Amino acid sequence: MKSTMRPMVRVLCQATATRSAVLVVACFGAAGLWVAAQSAAPSTGRAPASAGPADPKLIEDLVVANRILAIEGVFDAMGQVSVRHDRDPTRYLMAYARAPELVTPEDIMEFDLDSNPIDARGRPLYKERFIHGEIYKARPDVVAVVHNHSPFVVSFSVSSVPLRALAHSGAFIGDRLPTFEIRGAGGMTDMLVSSLALGRALAQTLGDKPALLMRGHGAVTVGPNLPHAVGRSIYLEVNAKLQAQAMALGGTITYLDPEEARKVEARRDYGRPWELWRRKALFK
Amino acid sequence: MKSTMRPMVRVLCQATATRSAVLVVACFGAAGLWVAAQSAAPSTGRAPASAGPADPKLIEDLVVANRILAIEGVFDAMGQVSVRHDRDPTRYLMAYARAPELVTPEDIMEFDLDSNPIDARGRPLYKERFIHGEIYKARPDVVAVVHNHSPFVVSFSVSSVPLRALAHSGAFIGDRLPTFEIRGAGGMTDMLVSSLALGRALAQTLGDKPALLMRGHGAVTVGPNLPHAVGRSIYLEVNAKLQAQAMALGGTITYLDPEEARKVEARRDYGRPWELWRRKALFK
Amino acid sequence: MKSTMRPMVRVLCQATATRSAVLVVACFGAAGLWVAAQSAAPSTGRAPASAGPADPKLIEDLVVANRILAIEGVFDAMGQVSVRHDRDPTRYLMAYARAPELVTPEDIMEFDLDSNPIDARGRPLYKERFIHGEIYKARPDVVAVVHNHSPFVVSFSVSSVPLRALAHSGAFIGDRLPTFEIRGAGGMTDMLVSSLALGRALAQTLGDKPALLMRGHGAVTVGPNLPHAVGRSIYLEVNAKLQAQAMALGGTITYLDPEEARKVEARRDYGRPWELWRRKALFK
Amino acid sequence: MKSTMRPMVRVLCQATATRSAVLVVACFGAAGLWVAAQSAAPSTGRAPASAGPADPKLIEDLVVANRILAIEGVFDAMGQVSVRHDRDPTRYLMAYARAPELVTPEDIMEFDLDSNPIDARGRPLYKERFIHGEIYKARPDVVAVVHNHSPFVVSFSVSSVPLRALAHSGAFIGDRLPTFEIRGAGGMTDMLVSSLALGRALAQTLGDKPALLMRGHGAVTVGPNLPHAVGRSIYLEVNAKLQAQAMALGGTITYLDPEEARKVEARRDYGRPWELWRRKALFK
Repeated sequence: MKSTMRPMVRVLCQATATRSAVLVVACFGAAGLWVAAQSAAPSTGRAPASAGPADPKLIEDLVVANRILAIEGVFDAMGQVSVRHDRDPTRYLMAYARAPELVTPEDIMEFDLDSNPIDARGRPLYKERFIHGEIYKARPDVVAVVHNHSPFVVSFSVSSVPLRALAHSGAFIGDRLPTFEIRGAGGMTDMLVSSLALGRALAQTLGDKPALLMRGHGAVTVGPNLPHAVGRSIYLEVNAKLQAQAMALGGTITYLDPEEARKVEARRDYGRPWELWRRKALFK
Repeated sequence: MKSTMRPMVRVLCQATATRSAVLVVACFGAAGLWVAAQSAAPSTGRAPASAGPADPKLIEDLVVANRILAIEGVFDAMGQVSVRHDRDPTRYLMAYARAPELVTPEDIMEFDLDSNPIDARGRPLYKERFIHGEIYKARPDVVAVVHNHSPFVVSFSVSSVPLRALAHSGAFIGDRLPTFEIRGAGGMTDMLVSSLALGRALAQTLGDKPALLMRGHGAVTVGPNLPHAVGRSIYLEVNAKLQAQAMALGGTITYLDPEEARKVEARRDYGRPWELWRRKALFK
Repeated sequence: MKSTMRPMVRVLCQATATRSAVLVVACFGAAGLWVAAQSAAPSTGRAPASAGPADPKLIEDLVVANRILAIEGVFDAMGQVSVRHDRDPTRYLMAYARAPELVTPEDIMEFDLDSNPIDARGRPLYKERFIHGEIYKARPDVVAVVHNHSPFVVSFSVSSVPLRALAHSGAFIGDRLPTFEIRGAGGMTDMLVSSLALGRALAQTLGDKPALLMRGHGAVTVGPNLPHAVGRSIYLEVNAKLQAQAMALGGTITYLDPEEARKVEARRDYGRPWELWRRKALFK
Repeated sequence: MKSTMRPMVRVLCQATATRSAVLVVACFGAAGLWVAAQSAAPSTGRAPASAGPADPKLIEDLVVANRILAIEGVFDAMGQVSVRHDRDPTRYLMAYARAPELVTPEDIMEFDLDSNPIDARGRPLYKERFIHGEIYKARPDVVAVVHNHSPFVVSFSVSSVPLRALAHSGAFIGDRLPTFEIRGAGGMTDMLVSSLALGRALAQTLGDKPALLMRGHGAVTVGPNLPHAVGRSIYLEVNAKLQAQAMALGGTITYLDPEEARKVEARRDYGRPWELWRRKALFK
């Protein structure tokens, strides 16, 4: 058995190594995982204290989430996904500013809820990290946040036509989702949610919803765990495309009834797709 | 010759192992196939008796069908395909509740026509298995059933514009296909066909047709064998897309004449595409 | 140098072997090519004589053309490409009836211009081979023929909106292309051009044009060599898509002027794309 | 560590070798790079003098840019990307006339600003090289030029509907982009910018803009470096698609305000996507 297994492992590593930067996860598993921030010695007096090392499984899931969203076409070279620290709800974990598809466990950093890094060590930071910090502050129920630029959702974000719940996979859209118009919060900007104030305004627009659109920019999805936040980003795009296609047919459309949407969400579980997405992220 | 072949086989196994869970099929062929349910000792008094081991070739085809539908974009992480047991028309075979792309021969279970599992062994079951059982009850001619969420078909399912037979590959659409409105059968639901009653209502809506649409949800296709049920799912999506594109051009459209559609279906044979799809499912 | 090259070759063969049936071409090159029909002993008195073995390079190009059209999304599991025999203009070469992506040099057969096979040896024949034979009869300038079901072209084939030359890559469309309405030639049929009479009617509709649309079915493209016939199939689909997208914008459209189209075609050369497509077909 | 790394490198080389011609870059890195033109002995009296060997890193980036644009769907088998010589602003570097996806360091040639090759050695030249030379003459700020046929941009190029800045990734579109109508400069042509005069007319139409559309043909994007010119080609297509999708919804659309567009461009940096694109170009 052992001799059969070893070449298999080697093959998996090779294949992964040729395609992505997630090879450490794929080849060496949880053993090689390490929270970059854990032994951080703050370089300035203002750096907040670390909550200690995060669960390696959580780090792996966060790396996998980055890669899933790239494989599924939600992320291109931009976007971010974060998760609340498992040891301290006032800390969250997110990569330094690099393309999500390339993120490895070593790239994950720890932030406080004002989005200050615990141990930056000179690495560049996502300018829009305030989206994440401000949502974690305002929504104790949220454990994971995704910000993306997925294409059909961007098209709806600039249109007077609202995105609506059409298929059961989009039931979380519910009655309608809010759209964040950055002009309302910041006037004429460079379109980035790059300050505490803009992040707070976005979190207020989100309210208690599972997602929001950002005009001319993209979307934010949140959830009680990574699979929910990731799944909502994937199915928000799917539903935007389904609605665009249905509208182009020119007839009348039957949308989900709000009661149907509530019942679908009450039994929602992303366990089955997550198993598939995770496998593809690790071995493809 | 033998020494030339062996490395080839090894290569095929490696390549397959890095991409999917169907590796057992790809590397070891029919020899490794096994009906999970065959030696089942019912764990409760209510579990029905097994019809005995199914033909390993049929199990392989069912695993391949799962993978084909994922590769061709008909299944995402959801959906199911089943086949009637070759030894007993009152039994059918289907995977436990996991993403179709990951299904292996070991995951195939046996069900009676009330959709009770013969030997669940704690594995989760597709909640919508009643679609399959009720159709097998109502339609002795049906040997295979697919339930999917393919995107252009979902867009038609919510539209007042009917999906029609436009190209010869969609001739099975015939005059028109029925749409299952779950509100008619169950009022405000969670959109799942998750009971004997809902499955029966769906089978009644299907009548003697080869396929039906499910409002805000997806489609069901059936056939006298797996290639037919699979091919109809693939070409239902193709035809929905072709019609959406043709309608967007804004002119008048010439659809297939019902007599043309009948003549096309009279000579329909999925042997040639099945050879291609199967190869891709096994070696890609 | 030699030791560096050998592993490279081995790698190329492995990679190809895991993806397609063209492995013989990829791994062993022209040396392994063989016209299946060359030593054929006619099995019935009616079988025509062979023109002798075709140029192995031509056979390789024909296999490559099959694979290119599949990779570029023009062929799905169906469609055919043929080429006139280099030794005898009254013979043409085409695979037996299998999915184009799987075609290997051994699958290539020889036909006379009535589309009788020289040495069928029980292999199934494309029912629509008469498209090819009748065009070779009517058009001495034609050396290669493709019949496909490419999706945007099918959408135009059923629409009252004509496909027009919009981009320079579609200049061969010229003033407009004819559409073959099989009802005019055969009444209510099974939509297949499966007889000499239907093939002749199609060839008459084609006239001296480089391509034609088939209502509810697909297209035919022809050329003075394989790269032209293949390139026209690829760019016919590209142009159909470009026009559909431009029309959806809702404004007025500037099409190519017929004089521009003529000038573009006068300098048309598919050498550069053919080098790329061929490489992908052999090594991917 | 060393023994672990070596097989990894070998694997990367194998994988690359099976997919593309960029293998020299991928396997041997900058060490193997070489400017083909550097030791050129002019074959005719008119050939201009070489500016000397270019920075191997610049050549590698140019090869990578060719491949990125193919992978991202901006180039099909056609198109060109060039970069100004780092030692002499009156020279630029570009491949000989072959499909961009196949370009290797050995294929890069040196041109003067009249688009004469320094050392052609019989290799075919892109007929549209005058686009590049004339822009380098007219725009001292431009260091890189891309000419492409990306599909949604072509659809806008023939439409009376203008392409506009809709998402922040398309902010460089600004107020609007010019469209080059070759009929204005050359009457009825073969649609190619194949002379100094046509190139000059195109450069005049471009003016001080970052991009222009070419009616019935494609687009040109320029930038102060390769990542900018490449990124603008990629996001021009993305934005054309986003706008087409938004317009198809039928409502009113909020475009970027010109002030927003200016502010976005003031902070634009393609470093993060370039890292991802480059990785994919080298290892995929």
